Amino acid sequence: MEKNYKLTIAYDGSRFYGWERQPGRDTVQGKLEGVLTRLNDGPVNVIGAGRTDAGVHARAMVASVRLDTQGSCQEIQAYLNRYLPTAIAVREVKEAADRFHARYNALGKTYRYTCYVGSAKPVFDRPYVTVLDYRPDLDRMRRAAELLTGTHDFKAFCANPRMKKSTVRCVDSITIRQEKDRLYFHFHGNSFLQNMVRILVGTLLEVGRGRWEPEYVQEILASGDRRMAGPTAPPEGLCLMKVDY
Amino acid sequence: MEKNYKLTIAYDGSRFYGWERQPGRDTVQGKLEGVLTRLNDGPVNVIGAGRTDAGVHARAMVASVRLDTQGSCQEIQAYLNRYLPTAIAVREVKEAADRFHARYNALGKTYRYTCYVGSAKPVFDRPYVTVLDYRPDLDRMRRAAELLTGTHDFKAFCANPRMKKSTVRCVDSITIRQEKDRLYFHFHGNSFLQNMVRILVGTLLEVGRGRWEPEYVQEILASGDRRMAGPTAPPEGLCLMKVDY
Repeated sequence: MEKNYKLTIAYDGSRFYGWERQPGRDTVQGKLEGVLTRLNDGPVNVIGAGRTDAGVHARAMVASVRLDTQGSCQEIQAYLNRYLPTAIAVREVKEAADRFHARYNALGKTYRYTCYVGSAKPVFDRPYVTVLDYRPDLDRMRRAAELLTGTHDFKAFCANPRMKKSTVRCVDSITIRQEKDRLYFHFHGNSFLQNMVRILVGTLLEVGRGRWEPEYVQEILASGDRRMAGPTAPPEGLCLMKVDY
Repeated sequence: MEKNYKLTIAYDGSRFYGWERQPGRDTVQGKLEGVLTRLNDGPVNVIGAGRTDAGVHARAMVASVRLDTQGSCQEIQAYLNRYLPTAIAVREVKEAADRFHARYNALGKTYRYTCYVGSAKPVFDRPYVTVLDYRPDLDRMRRAAELLTGTHDFKAFCANPRMKKSTVRCVDSITIRQEKDRLYFHFHGNSFLQNMVRILVGTLLEVGRGRWEPEYVQEILASGDRRMAGPTAPPEGLCLMKVDY
């Protein structure tokens, strides 16, 4: 009998062409579906809470999938961890309500963006940090982050110029903190537009390095023009930390 | 005028065939000498505090090297970090006394060995941990570690069967602790024989999984026979943390 499952998945995005399946390329969804198809003995459709870009990591991506298997949740998890590449780990498998849908039911997401601001080089976590050759001013970035927090039209922070649906989003909180030689940005919001977190980080860093005044982010928001915002920060610093349901 | 320098170096050992230079292979010493030869405009001899095996990491390897350069220590460090591979970082460059020798003057070393004992898979630090498929008993291993601590003939824990010099070493302390799904062994001693830390870990794990009683390590020590001790634990879990002078 077919049942619905909720999977919590961590992956090292540096090894994949993003989440979404693509013919002939290693993607996280593709790898999951490949292994689950064998377990299920038939095609499966793994639905992710969202799509991460190539190079972006996840500590707790959530996916839903319908499977027709006798195996327990623990057995499904063990099977996945055995046959998936080492760069993907299934942290949890749970039976879910029949109508549970990882994307439609997601209420919020937490992303973390990590920059390395030390004087040497990061040796042991190079694929997981973005190396800066300057030290951005935290106070300036925090002032800008405050102005970006809340419900706004984030059209200027969306990579897709042909986005037809609403580009209004609510970002509940943006926190910025430094621990030794690592600078962490945490974003929590209901949902995010394409590349939105990376463009927000790219913009905050422009403020942090003194190119723009913190208040300038209000003009960017008001413009709705992607060209007004900062560059898209590189994918390696970004990690999906949590999905709320 | 030639001056003597002390370098502190971190590296991701998974990218190299160990510390020691070898023709046609990427080694840490080889890379350092390659870059410093250009800076020095002539051959250099980088002396490491010890040699790490292929796959073994270092957070603070120390090396000494004589250079004839006008550059300040900061400039030498910046030059090295610019031209070395991303998997090697020079943490510090200091002028050293003329007679300072990284190997002869080393008084002690700290090694850390990390095992992953969680139920999922380590995704973000796979090259830096040894994955166990069992959970060793900490108390048993600590009892064995206590018996191994002190000054002993560690011949049974030496990979080189033709070792002509003394195999007596003093291991001041072995500590074992678990933090969430990671198990850490710390070793501090005056110096270590070839593969000694890895054979100690391999032996402690045999005790921890219940194959041997803790007291058995005394028989291993007394035998002086490598075949009596446990297997050589894999290199990826091992990291040189500190060298004392």
